[in-house]
Amino acid sequence: MAIPENLNIALLGLGRAGKFHIQSIQSIPGISLRCVVDVDESLARRLAKELQCDYSTDAEWPLGQADIDAVIVASPTQEHYGQIITALDAGKPVFTEKPLGSTLEEIDNCFGLAKRNELPLLVGFNRRFDPSFSSLARGVKEGQVGVLQMLRVTSRDSPLPTMDYIRTSHGIFHDCIVHDFDMLRFITGEDPVEIYSVGSSFVEEISALGDLDNVLVALRYDGGMIASIDVNRFASYGYDQRIEVFGSRGMLQAENRSPVSTVLSSVDGLLRPTIEHSFPTRYREAYRQELVVFSDCLREGTPLPVSHEDVRMSFILSELGEQSHREARPLRVTDHPALKHSPREDSKI
Amino acid sequence: MAIPENLNIALLGLGRAGKFHIQSIQSIPGISLRCVVDVDESLARRLAKELQCDYSTDAEWPLGQADIDAVIVASPTQEHYGQIITALDAGKPVFTEKPLGSTLEEIDNCFGLAKRNELPLLVGFNRRFDPSFSSLARGVKEGQVGVLQMLRVTSRDSPLPTMDYIRTSHGIFHDCIVHDFDMLRFITGEDPVEIYSVGSSFVEEISALGDLDNVLVALRYDGGMIASIDVNRFASYGYDQRIEVFGSRGMLQAENRSPVSTVLSSVDGLLRPTIEHSFPTRYREAYRQELVVFSDCLREGTPLPVSHEDVRMSFILSELGEQSHREARPLRVTDHPALKHSPREDSKI
Amino acid sequence: MAIPENLNIALLGLGRAGKFHIQSIQSIPGISLRCVVDVDESLARRLAKELQCDYSTDAEWPLGQADIDAVIVASPTQEHYGQIITALDAGKPVFTEKPLGSTLEEIDNCFGLAKRNELPLLVGFNRRFDPSFSSLARGVKEGQVGVLQMLRVTSRDSPLPTMDYIRTSHGIFHDCIVHDFDMLRFITGEDPVEIYSVGSSFVEEISALGDLDNVLVALRYDGGMIASIDVNRFASYGYDQRIEVFGSRGMLQAENRSPVSTVLSSVDGLLRPTIEHSFPTRYREAYRQELVVFSDCLREGTPLPVSHEDVRMSFILSELGEQSHREARPLRVTDHPALKHSPREDSKI
Amino acid sequence: MAIPENLNIALLGLGRAGKFHIQSIQSIPGISLRCVVDVDESLARRLAKELQCDYSTDAEWPLGQADIDAVIVASPTQEHYGQIITALDAGKPVFTEKPLGSTLEEIDNCFGLAKRNELPLLVGFNRRFDPSFSSLARGVKEGQVGVLQMLRVTSRDSPLPTMDYIRTSHGIFHDCIVHDFDMLRFITGEDPVEIYSVGSSFVEEISALGDLDNVLVALRYDGGMIASIDVNRFASYGYDQRIEVFGSRGMLQAENRSPVSTVLSSVDGLLRPTIEHSFPTRYREAYRQELVVFSDCLREGTPLPVSHEDVRMSFILSELGEQSHREARPLRVTDHPALKHSPREDSKI
Repeated sequence: MAIPENLNIALLGLGRAGKFHIQSIQSIPGISLRCVVDVDESLARRLAKELQCDYSTDAEWPLGQADIDAVIVASPTQEHYGQIITALDAGKPVFTEKPLGSTLEEIDNCFGLAKRNELPLLVGFNRRFDPSFSSLARGVKEGQVGVLQMLRVTSRDSPLPTMDYIRTSHGIFHDCIVHDFDMLRFITGEDPVEIYSVGSSFVEEISALGDLDNVLVALRYDGGMIASIDVNRFASYGYDQRIEVFGSRGMLQAENRSPVSTVLSSVDGLLRPTIEHSFPTRYREAYRQELVVFSDCLREGTPLPVSHEDVRMSFILSELGEQSHREARPLRVTDHPALKHSPREDSKI
Repeated sequence: MAIPENLNIALLGLGRAGKFHIQSIQSIPGISLRCVVDVDESLARRLAKELQCDYSTDAEWPLGQADIDAVIVASPTQEHYGQIITALDAGKPVFTEKPLGSTLEEIDNCFGLAKRNELPLLVGFNRRFDPSFSSLARGVKEGQVGVLQMLRVTSRDSPLPTMDYIRTSHGIFHDCIVHDFDMLRFITGEDPVEIYSVGSSFVEEISALGDLDNVLVALRYDGGMIASIDVNRFASYGYDQRIEVFGSRGMLQAENRSPVSTVLSSVDGLLRPTIEHSFPTRYREAYRQELVVFSDCLREGTPLPVSHEDVRMSFILSELGEQSHREARPLRVTDHPALKHSPREDSKI
Repeated sequence: MAIPENLNIALLGLGRAGKFHIQSIQSIPGISLRCVVDVDESLARRLAKELQCDYSTDAEWPLGQADIDAVIVASPTQEHYGQIITALDAGKPVFTEKPLGSTLEEIDNCFGLAKRNELPLLVGFNRRFDPSFSSLARGVKEGQVGVLQMLRVTSRDSPLPTMDYIRTSHGIFHDCIVHDFDMLRFITGEDPVEIYSVGSSFVEEISALGDLDNVLVALRYDGGMIASIDVNRFASYGYDQRIEVFGSRGMLQAENRSPVSTVLSSVDGLLRPTIEHSFPTRYREAYRQELVVFSDCLREGTPLPVSHEDVRMSFILSELGEQSHREARPLRVTDHPALKHSPREDSKI
Repeated sequence: MAIPENLNIALLGLGRAGKFHIQSIQSIPGISLRCVVDVDESLARRLAKELQCDYSTDAEWPLGQADIDAVIVASPTQEHYGQIITALDAGKPVFTEKPLGSTLEEIDNCFGLAKRNELPLLVGFNRRFDPSFSSLARGVKEGQVGVLQMLRVTSRDSPLPTMDYIRTSHGIFHDCIVHDFDMLRFITGEDPVEIYSVGSSFVEEISALGDLDNVLVALRYDGGMIASIDVNRFASYGYDQRIEVFGSRGMLQAENRSPVSTVLSSVDGLLRPTIEHSFPTRYREAYRQELVVFSDCLREGTPLPVSHEDVRMSFILSELGEQSHREARPLRVTDHPALKHSPREDSKI
């Protein structure tokens, strides 16, 4: 696979995620948008004209173009698996939004195919690329807080997603908390041995779907480390994304950010502006960084920072978290079928 | 019980807790230290001279003095119960550090006797009187955050207590987490229906005692509210005491405080001074306030803010939290013997 | 002047300022870089190739291209005036870094020509477009702090500019403090009646140039409002840019920002990361916004937010500030020759 | 002068300042209030009863009591000088609120008499004892910010003092800014060589008195250091007391404090409680510390941290600041009559 100096990208899906990938592509020298694909032809045509690139309604069209160097999958969730497999089959590197598929088998298939075809496959665990979270993880690795004892990940969405979105989201564990499991793996380099979840629902429509919108997960690790994840589908005050890491020598916290840094002092107190409203602004830099990393991999062969094992483990923990809530009891992580019956060599458990 | 304009106090115990009670007494007009009691006679004599009051090595001596209006119990934990009962028997109002005793029965005995003798009995759940925590609780009651969904209490001690102290502390649940349970009751006015604990130990000597120094508790309430408590016996960076309350309309947080409000900007970043080192300074104002409330009760009959039920419930939850960790499973709160067999009218469960 | 949907831009100058204009252009839909110009041909050629546009070493070349819709002047300071005049003469709208020229007459010439030719001329007072400063100015206009009484602008550069740069910078008043004068005008909508400056020099080379690196300016306004500006050529801890506005009803402050929002708690205290290191990152959003405003003006005729009078007054105050320091006495603003002999109708003084 | 283990204090004046001195005395072991004096006999009698001490309406009564070890002067401003002289004459150490008198001569008389009689005389420049300001000064001395270049002191009062108070306050320079001059001396250990003031008045009654309520002072030091002081008689949002010190290696700031450390996140932003409302709470710890220092001096002969020269210089700068405003021009500090004609050996100018 000879990669030219300038990378030509095909973008599948022009929805929410597609939009900020366009923004990222434009801001990175050496990457060009060569083609946009969406089932909505008028949308695809309009954007293609604005961005001076080709368009198609057929996700397979770009795969036949020799000058297209890689594919970004930002289509609706249920399309991911098929598009990833087809693109890898056609010899195109893939950068995809999570999830890869709806089962562990599909995940394994994607990575297996990428491995066989020697093609990069990057999953968009965007938070790993956030400057504050990656700085925190680096600090932990450098020993700034000593031996880890207690971690906390807080993720509260804003605004409340549409019910259409939530209906096809695979539930709060696979849609949201999977990111938090990945953050813990990213920061600690370890997997928990026990998981316990308790959840509830304050939004009637979410409750009607049998889904949760308010969840606490407790995780126990070998060696005594403990972690908690608390997640909510909606924070009125903005997109609340924080991590706290407590260790023998100190504590590292990654705090929320506001787009504006003013303070108003008055008889009412000291008022600062609201934090970032939602993920496109909160993670703008993270989205850009993950694309930089992907293009560095294509051009220079640098290794990708999200491994098959990373994606498997966050999926497994999402399944276990869901099950723990359903059965109202803690579960041993090694009791998960994928870990019980076929011990993997590269697994840390 | 006729209470004169100036209250004369007998203080039992001149250790750590006794010391800051002396400080509080001195700073409140209308309360005088009439007598100090400690088994260490030279200590008692020295302080009495300095403070210009009487002293004794006998905790019963003050009970015979007609001009002593109330007793403060700040002696070692194992003395509490006997001293409280004897003081109440002698007709003296009591303000005591927790715990009242080592069993629920002893707690019930103390409050029962106080009720029969129509004497005020105040338990030092000092955090209820902390300006930040009480402001947070008030904000919740005023509806500032709407419907409560997720709460978090963080309590990390500093410095590490001595092993002598920990050995007689009744364990981390009864010694530390009992305060956090009480905070949740204070803020929410509710009791949980389910409790799950996971704990570990990083300090070898604590582990050797079979005690824990690192604990996460997850609590589920009727209506979907969830709470977590995370506690550690030692934070290297100071006495870390925070509460976070998340609701449908917003979030309220009570943050740590530093005694000094400087910021140093340099090539290394922005450095602020460490937070309060330990409880005597962190809760100085709280200790003062609880004594003000006690004296107001004595003089004007204002009701005491810590009820028999409050003390029972935090004790019951401490027992359940301990048991949940031991049995590695969530427990229903109503399965506790004290709640199962004798439903109390005033209980909220 | 018919402006097509997509704007084609010629960029004069590929130095520091040119670089972040390229970044801005790439991030704004509907604006394209059509041509880059620099005396360094190999630099121009290299960037043109990377950016897929034309290049030239001749600043007049783009003026003959019919499909070039506007010119951005980011060349060295001494080139500005000639390039602006030539571009306006050729009928091209101009967006220029300050200064327009080295005298008030040159400033007047530029705006006079732009007016005669009915062409937009925007001067890059970038701070007006900074989200925090513009939010602060909006708050003042909405009356959030009531009647203004005391203002403070702090500007400290980072890193220390090269002596080559400082040598041709026209001095700290015209190079730096001009921005602060403009900020005060932007926020208050008023001009001072009296100005006093005191300055010094801690960097030997700057002192040798007869320039200052440490300056305090005091400004008095009709009605009692007072303002101070404090400026330094070098802050070791980063690019320090703050504004504080005190009024009868409150205070508004715009604080510095850090690229990373972590906090490390340790025995040394609470450490946050350094603030933005320099202007390209600190004002990234401001640079983008001023270009958006320029393109909106070109396409939709929206008025430009920096007027001829704005540019004149900041220039006049820079001259007076310099003179006040030289003569070590306060000066009446209306004693400036440009204001004394030819009172302008649109002036507020 | 033999000082017993316990110090007996006579307090002259039971107004605002007297009240918090009582509070301080009560909180310090080894100091007792022996006698309170006020022209308002019923007030004195009532407080004496409450505090279990003597009272008098005659400021000279305590001077005849052999067991009174020191006198605190907290009476109305115009009484200070006479009471200090009389007390020192009677051999009693004095701790006095500023000012000592209304002229430099009176200041010199007080310190001269104290020196002759070998009696401690401490002037209540309370801010020197504030934990944050003294920590900042210590940091400067330790070289945390390198060579000092620009300082800023901000002092805004709250609430607006009564006109009765302001009428007898000797003007904003002698009543307020004198503290800021002293802070600069305390932090830098230097005296300015030039001073320029600009002031105005937004409160009609203050304007009618010919006094100012909004003042900016610019100070130039040998070596290039510059300082500004900005003062206002009333900040609506609370008692605003900040210091910022900028140097070659960094910046130190002392920020305001709030009594409560909560944050409310909502759609309106992040709201923290108002800062301390006024000086009794803001400087509570400072008032306590200055009394501790005074008693340490009495008992152990430790030197007092506020020197005759300190008090002279802040008085001289107050006079010069006032004059600079009146004459609308900068003044050389050495042109002050007290410095011009009689150069003092211990002066740093």
